[in-house]
Amino acid sequence: MKTQTILLKNRPEGKPKLSDFEFTTEDSIETISSGEMLLETAYVSVDPYLRGRMSDAKSYVPPFELNKPIHSGVVAKVIDSKNDKFSEGDYVSGMLDWKTQQISKVEDLLKVDASKAPLSAYLGILGMTGLTAYCGLTQIGKPQAGETLVVSGAAGAVGSIVGQIGKILGLRVIGIAGTDEKIDMLKSKFGFDAGINYNTTDNMKTAIAEAAPDGVDIYFDNVGGPISDAIFFSINKFARIINCGAISVYNNTELPKGLSVQPFLVKNSALMQGFIVSNYVEKFPEAMKQLSEWLAEGKLTYTETIVDGFDNIPKAFIDLFEGKNKGKMIVKI
Amino acid sequence: MKTQTILLKNRPEGKPKLSDFEFTTEDSIETISSGEMLLETAYVSVDPYLRGRMSDAKSYVPPFELNKPIHSGVVAKVIDSKNDKFSEGDYVSGMLDWKTQQISKVEDLLKVDASKAPLSAYLGILGMTGLTAYCGLTQIGKPQAGETLVVSGAAGAVGSIVGQIGKILGLRVIGIAGTDEKIDMLKSKFGFDAGINYNTTDNMKTAIAEAAPDGVDIYFDNVGGPISDAIFFSINKFARIINCGAISVYNNTELPKGLSVQPFLVKNSALMQGFIVSNYVEKFPEAMKQLSEWLAEGKLTYTETIVDGFDNIPKAFIDLFEGKNKGKMIVKI
Repeated sequence: MKTQTILLKNRPEGKPKLSDFEFTTEDSIETISSGEMLLETAYVSVDPYLRGRMSDAKSYVPPFELNKPIHSGVVAKVIDSKNDKFSEGDYVSGMLDWKTQQISKVEDLLKVDASKAPLSAYLGILGMTGLTAYCGLTQIGKPQAGETLVVSGAAGAVGSIVGQIGKILGLRVIGIAGTDEKIDMLKSKFGFDAGINYNTTDNMKTAIAEAAPDGVDIYFDNVGGPISDAIFFSINKFARIINCGAISVYNNTELPKGLSVQPFLVKNSALMQGFIVSNYVEKFPEAMKQLSEWLAEGKLTYTETIVDGFDNIPKAFIDLFEGKNKGKMIVKI
Repeated sequence: MKTQTILLKNRPEGKPKLSDFEFTTEDSIETISSGEMLLETAYVSVDPYLRGRMSDAKSYVPPFELNKPIHSGVVAKVIDSKNDKFSEGDYVSGMLDWKTQQISKVEDLLKVDASKAPLSAYLGILGMTGLTAYCGLTQIGKPQAGETLVVSGAAGAVGSIVGQIGKILGLRVIGIAGTDEKIDMLKSKFGFDAGINYNTTDNMKTAIAEAAPDGVDIYFDNVGGPISDAIFFSINKFARIINCGAISVYNNTELPKGLSVQPFLVKNSALMQGFIVSNYVEKFPEAMKQLSEWLAEGKLTYTETIVDGFDNIPKAFIDLFEGKNKGKMIVKI
C-alpha cells in the first residue's frame, strides 16, 4: 500500500494554481507506537482561510511551510489504535494533514458519531463551519428579534447557516451571492427574506437600500471588497459588522483599496470586529448543543458540494475562489 | 443693546467658507418668563464634528437647519434668572446657540465653578473634550499597562488628552501630527514617547513600524483617511481602534477611498468601534472625577487656542480644518 501526501510547493501569487501543490507517494505505515493511532482519511475540508496560511505575510497563525504537508479539517477512520480513547473503526475529526493515511496522537481529535449525522456534517454544520456561523452571529452580532441582517457569501458554507440562524432568531435576512440559482436557493431552501445577485446588480448600494428599508443592523461579512463597501451606506446606528472573511481580496497581490469606512463608523457608532472562531472556544459546547438541536428539529438544513478523490483536493480548493461550491466544499477520499 | 446671531446660510460644499455663515442683529431681550434665565455668552467651542451637522446627509443627529442659529458647547454667564437653580452671576455650560445673548431653560445646563478651573476648561479638558478622550480610551481601548497606543490628531484637543491619559495608564504613546512644532510639544509638554510628522514623512507605514516595534495595540483615530491606513500594517492581534473622528474626510465631496481594512481586521481579530461620547453618559461622573483629580494633581495639562470676538467664530471653525489650532479651539466673546 502507498500513502499519498499533498505538499505546498510554492506560495501562490494571486489565485492559487495546481502547480502550487505537489503530490508525493511513500510506503504506507505498518506499525504504530503506544498512545498513537493510524488514521485513514475519509473527508477533507477545503476552506478560503487556508489561502492566508499559504502566504508568508506576518500573521499570528504561522504560515504553512514550503514542501511540507498542508493541513485542514479532516474526518478520518481509526484503522489501528494503541491508545485507550479511540478504537479501530471509530471516526474522528480534527486538524490533520492532507494525506491518505497518517499517524496521530489523540490530543485535539474528537470522536464523531456517524449515527447522528452524516460524517461530512462534522466538517460543516456540526464542525468549524457551524461554530463560526453561530459564534460570530451571536457573540458579535448580538441579534435582537426584528432587526435586519445582511450576509455576504450567503450561499457559502458559513453564510447559509448564518442566514438560517438569523431566521430562527427572528431577523429579517438578506443574502448576497453571485448567481440567480444561488439566490433562488437562499430563499427557497434556507428561508432568506431577500437575495441580491451581485453579478447582475448594477448598483449594489441602491439594491441594499431597497432590500433593507429599515436599514442594516448586522452585517455578517464573508467577502470584504466592493460588495461590502455598498453595505455601509445603509447601516443603522449601533450596527455590528462581523468581519469573518475577505475572500474577495485574499488573492490580491496589490493592497486592497476600497471605501474609507471610518466616517460611516463614526457617524453610526458602528462596530467592526475581526472574527476567528478559535477565539470563542469557551462557547463551543453551547454552540454544538444548540446546532445539534436545531438540526434534529429540522430547523437547520445545509448544502454540501462533495468532490470525489484525494487527487482533486487542490482543484476543489482553487474552485472556492470561483464560487463553484454551494455550501460547504468537501473532498471525499 | 443689540444681540448678534450666527446662522447657517448654506450647506458647505467641501471646505466651509465664510459665506456659508450669516450674521444677524436684533434688539436684545429685556424680559424673561418664570423658569427661564437670560444668558450672556462667554466662551464658544468650535469643533470638527459640527461640519457633519452642516450637511444634510442621513444621520441619527439631525442636521442644522438652514437660516437657523448654529449651536455648540458654550460657557455663559447668567445675567438674569427666574428659576431656583441658577442665580445672576453664575456661569453655566451646555449646548447653546451662537448668539451673544439668549434665553434658556435650566435643563441640560451645568453650573461651572470658575474658582476650580478657568472657564474655558469646561469646554475642553473638563468638558466634552476630556470626556471624549477618557471614555473612548478606557471604554473601547481597554488599555493594559505596557501596551502601545497610537493617537492621530495628537496635537488636537482630544488627542493631546488621550496621549496623556495613555501615559498615566502605563502605555507607550505615539502621536501623529502635522508640524515639527506640534511634534515637539507632544513630547516636551504632553509626555508622548514618540511623534510622527505626517507632512514630512515619506513612508508612514515604515515610520509607524519603527515607532511601534512591538506593534500597535490601541489606535485612537481622530482623522481617518491615508494617515489611518498606515496604522493597519502594524496592528497586533486583538487591536482596538477607536474611531472618534475622521476630520481628514469631513470636507470631501466625493466618497472617501482608501485601504480596504477588512483583511487586516480578520487576520488580527481586531476591533473598530465608531465612538461618540454621548453614548457613554453613564460614565461621565466617574470620568469627570478622574479628570479633575488628575488635573489638580498636575498629571494632566492642556493647550487652548483662544480666538477673540464673536465675529471670529466662523473663521475659527474653518481654521480647524487647516490645523491652525493647538489643542482646544475656543472663541472668547
